[in-house]
Amino acid sequence: MSGIIHAGAGISPEQAAVEQKLVDTVIASFDKTQDPRLKKVMQSLTRHLHNFVREVRLTEDEWNTGIEFLTAAGHITDDKRQEFILLSDVLGLSMQTVAINNKAYKGATEATVFGPFFIEDAPEIPLGGDIAGGAHGQPCWVEGTITDTSGNPVPGARIEVWEADEDGFYDVQYADARVAGRAYLYADDHGRYSFWGLTPTPYPIPHDGPVGKMLEAAGRSPVRTSHLHFMVTAHGLRTLVTHIFVEGDPQIEIGDSVFGVKDSLIKRFEPQPAGTPTPDGRDLGNQTWARTRFDVVLAPALA
Amino acid sequence: MSGIIHAGAGISPEQAAVEQKLVDTVIASFDKTQDPRLKKVMQSLTRHLHNFVREVRLTEDEWNTGIEFLTAAGHITDDKRQEFILLSDVLGLSMQTVAINNKAYKGATEATVFGPFFIEDAPEIPLGGDIAGGAHGQPCWVEGTITDTSGNPVPGARIEVWEADEDGFYDVQYADARVAGRAYLYADDHGRYSFWGLTPTPYPIPHDGPVGKMLEAAGRSPVRTSHLHFMVTAHGLRTLVTHIFVEGDPQIEIGDSVFGVKDSLIKRFEPQPAGTPTPDGRDLGNQTWARTRFDVVLAPALA
Repeated sequence: MSGIIHAGAGISPEQAAVEQKLVDTVIASFDKTQDPRLKKVMQSLTRHLHNFVREVRLTEDEWNTGIEFLTAAGHITDDKRQEFILLSDVLGLSMQTVAINNKAYKGATEATVFGPFFIEDAPEIPLGGDIAGGAHGQPCWVEGTITDTSGNPVPGARIEVWEADEDGFYDVQYADARVAGRAYLYADDHGRYSFWGLTPTPYPIPHDGPVGKMLEAAGRSPVRTSHLHFMVTAHGLRTLVTHIFVEGDPQIEIGDSVFGVKDSLIKRFEPQPAGTPTPDGRDLGNQTWARTRFDVVLAPALA
Repeated sequence: MSGIIHAGAGISPEQAAVEQKLVDTVIASFDKTQDPRLKKVMQSLTRHLHNFVREVRLTEDEWNTGIEFLTAAGHITDDKRQEFILLSDVLGLSMQTVAINNKAYKGATEATVFGPFFIEDAPEIPLGGDIAGGAHGQPCWVEGTITDTSGNPVPGARIEVWEADEDGFYDVQYADARVAGRAYLYADDHGRYSFWGLTPTPYPIPHDGPVGKMLEAAGRSPVRTSHLHFMVTAHGLRTLVTHIFVEGDPQIEIGDSVFGVKDSLIKRFEPQPAGTPTPDGRDLGNQTWARTRFDVVLAPALA
């Protein structure tokens, strides 16, 4: 790829040569990098960024705008807000990294983005327990089995689940330090699991910063398709980080703002009228609820 | 270019298709951008960044390192320190933007990077005046003529000059608000100019942040080749932003950390023993000094 000249139309051979010589000089400046992997990454990054700048014939004003954008992203980022992850997300780079590192394995459940809202030390719940922890939303019964790609159940698989409340907030976005809408549990001896969560609702990624402005200028929605996060781990099998999405959510057609949706991960959430008996006899009073099924198939561990 | 699949060796056609579909989806998400230029820039940026991620098969740990790098760059950046400009500089992207926007014009003086240290409102000095303003260094007499590409002198051309002191600091890096090592003057009726500056010395770009760490890991020097900044403006002619570099500076061979050197901009700075009479009769006491000549040829203004 390195020989291709991205000089665009109407660029003289002399000008193209000046630009290419600069690219070659910068790439050569990394030749003495001791770590061969760092060298490869930096040289590739250099070449592709120069290809971009040359292809669009970036103006000095646009270069300035880019510097200001990154500066604003840096300044809004703190230990609760991560604008650079949002940027990577809305450019599909997070999802591409997931795609590269979680190659499709025949029959295994597909992966999707991890997102910025997972935290360690969520509480353990028993099978059939409730992850809500006071978070508001419609109760939702979630059940399924964990198997390997040969169909064998995976007893004791660890299942971490986390989700936003009905207002679109994860607990880490609350003003207090409450833990809500997250928990982990273990599959039973037959690889079965079940828990009460909340029916997922759509919410926007934080869009009051430079990434939000960029999405607005591009006529793009900041809204994420409704989803529930899963991370499933078991000895000898590939860890799965994924979501399930809600069939019929209009945001599936509009487009998930971080490109996380895969058809195989869209699940039917069956609405249940108030008063419908619950699977575990839980009394929900005069509330509606929903139920869904998510059977997980784990790929073999990477060699 | 958009059809090329950067999936690397050993990637199955199915995997390549998954990755390419994601790229196409992200590019299409910008289709509704109202500003056609913004649309073009974002779609090109998206394509080239995905090409990079796919080519190197970026790992999730490396993606995290990238996010942490940008976060650290954002947090060290303030109104006096600009780590994102440094990053652009050391990747040669600033110089590439200069190359694209200041196309070589037959016979005209070449441009180079603007740098982060220019400020408005430098003091005016008369012809033959001193820009040092108390900055320390060896005095240096600089003279030349400003002409157009037909050889006609450009009377009254405005010449802004700025440089670091012998310790490598620009005045904006001083703790106080002193103005030093910068000034502007006007060419005379024959396009001639002259002033006293300081003989330029090499200095490192600020390297106590993430960009400095990256240069160190790459075995690259943070040092800039010794230089003196010029910006020359005149009605009807293209504004020239450039430097002159000091012939014999070892950093020319080692490599300027921001790739600003062009052969045509390397000038002989003639050392003058202490006591050598000065061109304007200035008494320098028992000090050595230097002299150089820089004849500037301005291209016609862009249409």
